[in-house]
Parts: sequence; C-alpha cells; structure tokens
Amino acid sequence: MGIEWNSFFAERTKYITGSQIRQFFALTERPEVISFAGGFPGNDFFPSEDIAQTLAQLVREESQQSLQYGPTEGSYELRKLIAKKMTLEGASCEVDNLMIIDGSQQGLDFLGRILVNEEEPVLVEEPAYIGGMSAIKSYGGAACGIEMDNEGPLPEKMITRIKQLISEGKKPKVFYTVPNFQNPTGTTTSLKRRLEILKIASHYNLLIIEDNPYGPLCYEGEVPPSYFSLDTEDRVIYLGSFSKILIPGIRIGWIAASKELIEKVSMVKQTADLCSSTLGQQLACCLSRDSYIDMHTRKLTELYREKRDAMIKSMDRYFPPNIEYNKPKGGFFIWVTFPDHYPDSNKLLQLALDKNVAFVHGEGFFSNGGGKKSARFSFSQPSLEEIKKGIKILGELFYDIEGGSSLQAVGH
Amino acid sequence: MGIEWNSFFAERTKYITGSQIRQFFALTERPEVISFAGGFPGNDFFPSEDIAQTLAQLVREESQQSLQYGPTEGSYELRKLIAKKMTLEGASCEVDNLMIIDGSQQGLDFLGRILVNEEEPVLVEEPAYIGGMSAIKSYGGAACGIEMDNEGPLPEKMITRIKQLISEGKKPKVFYTVPNFQNPTGTTTSLKRRLEILKIASHYNLLIIEDNPYGPLCYEGEVPPSYFSLDTEDRVIYLGSFSKILIPGIRIGWIAASKELIEKVSMVKQTADLCSSTLGQQLACCLSRDSYIDMHTRKLTELYREKRDAMIKSMDRYFPPNIEYNKPKGGFFIWVTFPDHYPDSNKLLQLALDKNVAFVHGEGFFSNGGGKKSARFSFSQPSLEEIKKGIKILGELFYDIEGGSSLQAVGH
Repeated sequence: MGIEWNSFFAERTKYITGSQIRQFFALTERPEVISFAGGFPGNDFFPSEDIAQTLAQLVREESQQSLQYGPTEGSYELRKLIAKKMTLEGASCEVDNLMIIDGSQQGLDFLGRILVNEEEPVLVEEPAYIGGMSAIKSYGGAACGIEMDNEGPLPEKMITRIKQLISEGKKPKVFYTVPNFQNPTGTTTSLKRRLEILKIASHYNLLIIEDNPYGPLCYEGEVPPSYFSLDTEDRVIYLGSFSKILIPGIRIGWIAASKELIEKVSMVKQTADLCSSTLGQQLACCLSRDSYIDMHTRKLTELYREKRDAMIKSMDRYFPPNIEYNKPKGGFFIWVTFPDHYPDSNKLLQLALDKNVAFVHGEGFFSNGGGKKSARFSFSQPSLEEIKKGIKILGELFYDIEGGSSLQAVGH
Repeated sequence: MGIEWNSFFAERTKYITGSQIRQFFALTERPEVISFAGGFPGNDFFPSEDIAQTLAQLVREESQQSLQYGPTEGSYELRKLIAKKMTLEGASCEVDNLMIIDGSQQGLDFLGRILVNEEEPVLVEEPAYIGGMSAIKSYGGAACGIEMDNEGPLPEKMITRIKQLISEGKKPKVFYTVPNFQNPTGTTTSLKRRLEILKIASHYNLLIIEDNPYGPLCYEGEVPPSYFSLDTEDRVIYLGSFSKILIPGIRIGWIAASKELIEKVSMVKQTADLCSSTLGQQLACCLSRDSYIDMHTRKLTELYREKRDAMIKSMDRYFPPNIEYNKPKGGFFIWVTFPDHYPDSNKLLQLALDKNVAFVHGEGFFSNGGGKKSARFSFSQPSLEEIKKGIKILGELFYDIEGGSSLQAVGH
C-alpha cells in the first residue's frame, strides 16, 4: 500500500502546477533539434578560460570567503561593486539597498511570497515572462495582462484595468515588468512611457518590480534610464542578474530596493537557503572588478548583434511576407506573429518539431488567453549557421502551409 | 513621503519573523571572539587545492555543463552517483527518487511549503534544529517538540503527543528529525528507537523528514541504518548535503523520496530558482567520483575527532563538576546543561561575550519554552588551541559564578 500523497500536500500546493518553461527545456535537449526555444545565453560566449583561472586563484587565495557559508544578504564587496555600478547608471543605491539572490528568478519567487496574497491581482505585461507569472500564480495571485505596443505597456489600458479591478474590490498593488528587450517580445519601454507608468504607480500606489536581465545587452542606441533610477518614491524593486552578462551556472543575481523590503527579503532568504553560493558570489565579485564584465558585455553585444541580424535577415529572406516580426534592439528574443488563417502556433510548433526545429508558441506568455497566433524566437544559443538553416526550414514549412511552393521563398 | 511597506506585505509574512541563526552568525564575526556558536565546518579542512584544480579543469573541459543553466531536478550524473552511494548504504534509491537542491535548508523550505498548512502541528525533536523549525513556522505551522533521551526521541512521549493533538482535532502529518549527531544535542537515535518510531509513523500515518548532514562524520563505531533505508512504506523523505563532507559554499544538497513527492518538489524548484548552481553540481559530481569524497570524509573524521576530544578534555578539566555535557559520537555539537541555580544561558552568553567567547544559548532550539539552562557548543570551526583557551576562560567564568575562585578549576 502506497502513501496517499494528495492527503499530505498543503492547501497552497493547488497553486503549484509546474511551469511551461519545463517543456521548453525538454524541447531543446534532443541534439538533432535546432532550437530557437530556450532563452539560454550562448555556450560559445562563456569566457571559460578567464573563469577557470579566476576560480582556481580565488579558491587558493581566499578559500574561506569562497568555500564557507556567507552572510544571508550576500558578500559585502559584491554588493558594494553592484551599488557603485548602479549609482554610475544614475540610480541612488547603497550597499544596504542590495541583496544577493540565486538569479533573478529567486527574487521573483521571494517577492511573490512577500507581496502577493491569494486571489490578489498583479499587473503584468501582455505577453509577459512566464517565470514571473509562475511566481505570482504559485502564491495564488492572478496575473492581469496590460496590452503593449512597440513603446511598452499602454498607460490608458493600465488605468482602465486598474479602475476595473478597483470597481471589483480588488485593487492591485504591484506591476511586474521587463522594460528592456522584454521576454518574450523584445520590446523596450520608452522613456516617455516609463515616466507615464511611474505617474500611474504613484497615483494608484503601486509597487513596480523591474526585472532587467537583458538591459546590458544593447545592440543599437542606448536603453532608457531604469524605473529604479527615475523613481523618487521608493516604489521600484529592481532585479539584476549575472546570468546573461557572465554565466547562469553560478545562479547569482541581486535585488535593489528600499531597506524595509530588503530586510523582509533577507528573512525569507535565511529560511529558504541560508545564503547564495559564496563560490559564485566571489567569482562574480572578482570579475566585476576592473570593469572585466563591462568589457565582456561589449564583446557579447557584438556577438549577439550578429546572431540577431542573421535571424532577421533569414526571416526577411525565407518567411512568407504576411508573417510579422519585430527587430529588437537588444536581448535574445524576436516576437513573431502569424496571419489569422494559419494554424495556432502550438500546432505550428508540432509541425516544426517534425522537421527538428523548435521555438516557443505564444500562449504560455499570455495571462488571459491570447497568443495563439504568435511565437517567441530566441537567437541567443544557436550558431549563425543553425539560425540560417533553421529559419530556412521554417520558411519552407510556412510556405507549404500557405499552399504555395517553398521555392517562392527565394523571391523576397 | 515614504511607502507604507506594511500595507504591501502579504498576510503570510506574519509568519516570517527571521531566525535566531542570524544573531549567531553575527556573534561569530567579531575577529577577537573565540566562537563555539556557529555550526560551520572548519575552514582549515577544506581541500582547497583539489577544489581549485578540479574547478579549473571542469570549466575548461565541460564548460556547457558547468556554466550554463541545467535541468531543474539536477545533474543526471550527480544524481546517479548519489543513488549509487545511498543504495550501497542499504537504501532503495533510483535517479528519479532524487533531486538536487541548494543545501538541505532549501529542502526544508520546500517541504514546509509543500506539506505544512497554516496552524498545523509538525512533530519535531525537543530541542530541534532551528532552521528546520524556521521553515515550519514560516509557513504557519506549529512545531511540537517530542522529548528526547540519549537514544533519541521518546516513543511513549510521541504517542502521547499525537493522541493529545488528535483529541484537539489537529492530527499531525509530519515528524522532522536529525537522527545522527543531532543539531543541537549531538544525540544519535538508536536503531531500536528508529524502528519504534517507524512503527508509530506507520500507525498514525506520519511522514518522516530525515535530515542527515552529519551522519558521515562519525568518530566512534557506526551510525545505525537510516530511516530512509529501514522504511518499507515510502513515508521517509531524506535530506543529504555536501556542506559538511565537502564545502558549504557551493550550496548543494539533495532530497531522496517517493517519485510523487519529487515531482512536486521539482515544480516548486522550477519557480523558486530554475535550478541549482551547475558549477557547484559539477564540482560535487567530479569529487564524488573515484571515492574522493569518501576518502576526504575519513580524513575529516580524524580531524574533527581531535577537536571533539580537545573540547571534552577541556570541559573535564576546567568546567565545574555540576555542569553536564555529553560526548557525541560524531558531528559538530556538544550539549551543555547548567545547574538550576545558574543564571539563564542567554545571560551566561552575555557574560561569556564580555570575555570574547561565544556559544549558542539553548532557548532557540525549543519549540515551547525550555532550554534556559542549556547551551550548544560547536567544536567544528575553532582550532585546538582556541578550544582549550575558550573553554578555560568559560570554566573560570563558571567558577566565578559559583562564587568560588577560578583557581579551583585546576583541581579536577
């Protein structure tokens, strides 16, 4: 006789249903698949030799700091370096405003735990990052999408939604956003839009969770100032990460926020895992000195820009002209919209997988339906050759769906 | 005007009050203090050179596996090595029964989240590990202590407590235990006692969370078989850790349990932090091959045994004879009991800190009061010289408290 596990699970587990991200990871694992699915950084771009040397040196010379338990709030020196960097970027940030976490996903989980009551609405972008919505949902919150255009979330839609929720007796407290090269759409929220949204946040007393893993990977122009640096009322909680500018394998990110919030996060972290990896923190710390990461990031922007351009060029060449896609100015993602007469994108994904190419179909990114005719394409991990080959295969598939010949693809 | 943070915090944060462990960490930080407080492994015992070489090699040769994101459930190879090791130790354990987590503390947090409803009683040892009780309390659970003797938790007390809780309409579902060299008392639960407790668990349909960070550090004889290996009903959830047998700085531990539970834990982990550090996992994996960790553990047992013996010998020599302490057969901790006429142990700690010696006073380890005349002494981190010096200083302090002269200390 086995255990009746369901009789042991706590009530709150009804909200814990697993995430669609898991499926996407699985898709990328078959070695014969060219994958535009995962939002992983490019393996080839890891500075392995510098990391190998730095790790060996710091373990030999600073073994206590890199191998022992560390303070829950994180390494003082790493926080000091992050505070300095954020201050240079225009934010007002001291060491006490910062906590080290296991990648920004842990920040989303902690913030869900600290801020989101069951049944409470949380404003998100529509579409939004799946891991952010998972964190909200896993604590019983309800993600409420705010429609976007190519300048970011639409202020009038946000106000309408807030008023509607208030009229239902469910005033939202939090807006979650990825303002730079958003996951999944690649959209960057304009400065004008940021200021409008901050005004709305002030008027309706909202907190803003600003999740910024991609901001440093900017391939054209500059990103606007962060919400965190524009905020004068302490209502922005900023999440940063070393996953995309260095490596994800150390699981090191940070939260910057008001000291009152940091104190609460620190209490949660204490019980959650005592502290983040000191080995990972020391590595991030060593490589943050002397602008190493800044220089590496400049190299990365050159390399990723090439991949983005290769994907756009291939889409221009091989996709039927009625398929729409944007040209993001940074990050990892291109958002693709199919004509209404196409099969739904989950069906398209099945057809693509039959030809050993993967992307992420759109539905998972939408809080309330939608996304059936859209998809996220990531150019960060495949090689330039794989990008060309994979997009060509998909172009042929889409022309087949149109009922035309794949030879037409060469035409435009 | 600042943000009214309390108006933003979710209801569940009323249970998140921070842990006493934080204070203990702070105590150990003043460099002039000889600390018997922290349960940290000894810095000098880290195999830094081997770790430095292994890290450099694996980053150079397996950069994708060690620097990229990895599967949520953890490295397949590492889980395979752990499954093999646990099977050798008599447990029935396959790869699918295992998940990698950020140290066993993350396991306690996840299990709290998955198993503990608000207001629900959870059986614990009395006294119990603070981090385990924090995880229970932070989800609104109520830790209910079961009195122990030198063979472990007392079965008749456990039955009485369960019956009492049932009569109050609050049947417990879970018993949390550290059966080997327990934190804080150093007690090892005997085989006879384990079998009795398993029988109680079966009769009252309880799950057992078996937290075993110290088991491999055995200085005399052998530890009894684990609950996990004795269990025939899938009701034991086992937590293991590399923190004490290798290093804590990589934050790598594991959960072994029924596949149904592992699946739920995996969903939580996905939203909590995507995956554990792949760098840390690869290091643990490399060093688990060819019995490296087993050999290192044997070395550690020699070194820690010396420290334990030095502390016991110093206590024998310098402590007044009416102070009681046990001689643990492994792990890091000695449990000290003061006579009733002594000041409470938090007061004793203040007096000790004035003389730059630290330990942990007993109250924090008790779920329902108690512990005022006891304290936890850890011998794992201080050097042999510091152990002798610190215990001598305390011996003098205790003789002063007795009203006698500290010179008497030499007498026995």
